[in-house]
Amino acid sequence: KKYQPIDCLINEEFEIQCLRSATEDSVYIPFAFLHKYFEINGKIVDSKDGQQVFEWSHSYSRVYFPKHTYHENEAFLWFDNYNVEVRDRVRCVSAITGVPISSQWQSSGHSYAIQIAQFGLSHFSKHLSAGKPRVVALDSGDTLNRRTATYVVPEDAVLKRIESDDRPQHKVISVDGLNIIMNIKRKSVNDLTLSFDVKPLANFSLTAVLKAYSSSSSKEFSIVYTTSELDIWISNNEIIYGMGTQQKWKSLTRDLGVDLQKGLNIKEKKLGAKARNMQLIRLEMNGKALLANIRLQSSAHETYAKTAGDWFVANQESNGGFSINVNRKLSNGALQLKSGWYSAMAQGQAISLLIRLYTHTRNHKYLICAKNALNLFDIDSKDNGIRTKFMDKYVWFEEYPTTPSTYVLNGFIYSLFGLYDLSVSGNDSYCVKAGLLYRQGVESLEQMLPLFDSGSGSLYDLRHLGLGSAPNRARWDYHSTHINQLLFLNTIENKLIFQTTAKRWISYMKGYRAPHN
Amino acid sequence: KKYQPIDCLINEEFEIQCLRSATEDSVYIPFAFLHKYFEINGKIVDSKDGQQVFEWSHSYSRVYFPKHTYHENEAFLWFDNYNVEVRDRVRCVSAITGVPISSQWQSSGHSYAIQIAQFGLSHFSKHLSAGKPRVVALDSGDTLNRRTATYVVPEDAVLKRIESDDRPQHKVISVDGLNIIMNIKRKSVNDLTLSFDVKPLANFSLTAVLKAYSSSSSKEFSIVYTTSELDIWISNNEIIYGMGTQQKWKSLTRDLGVDLQKGLNIKEKKLGAKARNMQLIRLEMNGKALLANIRLQSSAHETYAKTAGDWFVANQESNGGFSINVNRKLSNGALQLKSGWYSAMAQGQAISLLIRLYTHTRNHKYLICAKNALNLFDIDSKDNGIRTKFMDKYVWFEEYPTTPSTYVLNGFIYSLFGLYDLSVSGNDSYCVKAGLLYRQGVESLEQMLPLFDSGSGSLYDLRHLGLGSAPNRARWDYHSTHINQLLFLNTIENKLIFQTTAKRWISYMKGYRAPHN
Ligand SMILES: [Ca+2]
Ligand SMILES: [Ca+2]
Repeated sequence: KKYQPIDCLINEEFEIQCLRSATEDSVYIPFAFLHKYFEINGKIVDSKDGQQVFEWSHSYSRVYFPKHTYHENEAFLWFDNYNVEVRDRVRCVSAITGVPISSQWQSSGHSYAIQIAQFGLSHFSKHLSAGKPRVVALDSGDTLNRRTATYVVPEDAVLKRIESDDRPQHKVISVDGLNIIMNIKRKSVNDLTLSFDVKPLANFSLTAVLKAYSSSSSKEFSIVYTTSELDIWISNNEIIYGMGTQQKWKSLTRDLGVDLQKGLNIKEKKLGAKARNMQLIRLEMNGKALLANIRLQSSAHETYAKTAGDWFVANQESNGGFSINVNRKLSNGALQLKSGWYSAMAQGQAISLLIRLYTHTRNHKYLICAKNALNLFDIDSKDNGIRTKFMDKYVWFEEYPTTPSTYVLNGFIYSLFGLYDLSVSGNDSYCVKAGLLYRQGVESLEQMLPLFDSGSGSLYDLRHLGLGSAPNRARWDYHSTHINQLLFLNTIENKLIFQTTAKRWISYMKGYRAPHN
Repeated sequence: KKYQPIDCLINEEFEIQCLRSATEDSVYIPFAFLHKYFEINGKIVDSKDGQQVFEWSHSYSRVYFPKHTYHENEAFLWFDNYNVEVRDRVRCVSAITGVPISSQWQSSGHSYAIQIAQFGLSHFSKHLSAGKPRVVALDSGDTLNRRTATYVVPEDAVLKRIESDDRPQHKVISVDGLNIIMNIKRKSVNDLTLSFDVKPLANFSLTAVLKAYSSSSSKEFSIVYTTSELDIWISNNEIIYGMGTQQKWKSLTRDLGVDLQKGLNIKEKKLGAKARNMQLIRLEMNGKALLANIRLQSSAHETYAKTAGDWFVANQESNGGFSINVNRKLSNGALQLKSGWYSAMAQGQAISLLIRLYTHTRNHKYLICAKNALNLFDIDSKDNGIRTKFMDKYVWFEEYPTTPSTYVLNGFIYSLFGLYDLSVSGNDSYCVKAGLLYRQGVESLEQMLPLFDSGSGSLYDLRHLGLGSAPNRARWDYHSTHINQLLFLNTIENKLIFQTTAKRWISYMKGYRAPHN
């Protein structure tokens, strides 16, 4: 036999079974062991030449190289690659506010300003790259688009077109009754964003019925938007979103694919890998409401970005903050934040979103909101602000303003982009102050960046200093976030340490390490 | 075939050949690759049950666990395990000063206070554990020990016993001529430390002739101690040590094994693995000198420790320092020390040696020297001292007082042991000051220790902060030095962070890592 088993004693601790070559002087170690011991990934894949090869991956994440200089009114960093709302820690996109509800740290859900800002920034960025969506009218209120849809109204129900005081020069659809159906004639797998304006006059629900096709079968799913203040729940096997109970006009823009996925998550079901081709086949209306502008779109990135911006405008507190209303424990409770804390990352990313929306819309509400969001940047963590200092020396803006400080790297750098965006948006006192804070932060980053370098990866934060604990190594996706941030920041700053650090950190992703002495 | 070759693509960079099992779902990686990629060691060894096993070692160094509380007049740390003079970077032990000459950073050699202190501390520690050596008299001056040696004096040479003014009540050996031989009758492989007192009256040399036996053959080596100010050189294939040219009494105590090894190093020859059984077979004297106390010993640890202590007493400068007179470049010259720099590690380890020698001998010269060695501890690096601060906040004593600071961890902790030793040796102002500096240092260590934790090892220093460079990972022997230091320091301090850090750093030696997020 060419290969014989040989016992391998690992660090005098335990044994594994290896192979020894009878002809060469070599020993072979099973990858299953290496996978666990070194956290290396590997899998057998078909290579281009038809053979199978084993692919060894030191890290699992990817680096986004900037294509041009960072600019405060262009796509935000690499966020056009993000799809915030599909993340597991997003419970759903609320049909009341239109923004994500986070289940992070509190399963009942809360409005998490960082998540909302990232939702807005990713859609803003996608809007710039994707451009205007295709819009298919179903019923404008004035008229039904007969090529796309047709109604079936039961005898004891009413659907009519009326004038509405609050919609001058346009008619609206008035429905009253149960089981009023709009069948969709022009079905499209690509147009799954449903928009409609609605004014409930009593209890009312609109149900979107989707059909999902696999190669061999199909299945129907219902998503109900109803008059309720609850965000999402399951009843009689139906996925139900509350759209609020106020009897006034509201505009809903729903990604039906996302709404279905979130509902299935709650039901702990999956769509099935092959049932990905979906179509909206009909709408069902129950109850009493006015409706208008019912349409399908290929996407609605601009709407989502504005909805997120509007959330910040509506929810900004008098101190300029967007408080996070959930208790947060880090390091098994050694660090705690009490509900009502602020985050430099939330403030900074909100500013990045708001500045972009202002540049895009010229609506001053966004600019004013961005400027007010700056206020917390010179309030210390201990005073419920977001600023700390490292060694009483270097200013740091805290994603988690704990005591002792955590110095989360990615959150800090995100906050710097926000400060930068505001600083270059004008030259009033807010912009000047943002510029000063930005420069302080860049100086801190230059000086402190080496502290985050482990020699084989990066550290997520510096909490271990205050806690006297093990360093908090960044998992690969945060490590690549650090790299991406440095690469983009360097398009503004062009500093050697950002370049060399990013380059070295990229090499760590391929298994290289800093030299030892 | 049970195992088939499969190509393995490493991080999309290069390919290696691996094995794939036909029966299990597994891939085997050749250890030769892992050895290079992860710097892991492994070798096939015979196990106890007669089978061969492959031993996988994550690190190559060992941890010394303290057996009892650190004490300022006991063995120094784990230094009874050290053999400083055999290290490659010791050029030789000078026959003029009796202390090592370093070839580190300057091949022509220099007196390196750290090396001399470690030489003294290791021998002091070995003296305590080994106790008094066995001494075999050859010729006291008064009498030849006829059981151990016999002379052969050529006709034109003279060997006689005379009174010497500077050696009252004892006779000394007076030699004049060439090729005066003392044949050693009682040969012993264990007694290879040759001592003699000598007063050259003109050019004089004493040659020790060693015979080294292998299983099949034997070979003779000559080591010449001659009147010269050169330290060591090779001439006519002979290894020659200068013992100085002054015509006054001096005592030489030579480890013939070490002296031979250092000579062979210069000749770039090796003794050969199997030619380890050595005996002194004869001494040859040439020239004119007085001699006394010629003897062989099993060891001379106490003598070496005192010789090192005496070197510090003799070489202390008016500022209390033991300057290091060699230019030192770190990080490819990014950090530089100009000849004449001081080292906190040298000052601290000298204190540790001197305090032990004082406790041992009650000779005040050692205590005074130790106290004066304290002076540099509150002089900053920039003023040619050894103190710096981290972030203007934490006092640090520098092994290498560069600008920007290096913050070498092991040298700093060694300096703390010196400060501790002096602080507990009395209660005058020096001891009080040493105690205050020690406490400052321990506080710095507590606060800064997490900065040296890479999550998979430790960092040798923090130079990367000042240089903006890659962290300087400690190789495993320095990593274990850090652990040993923490374990011993903790016998004094009993602080949680020293315990938990040492424990975690030990686990890194077995491949464990700090968690990632
Ligand atoms: Ca984060
Ligand atoms: Ca050292």
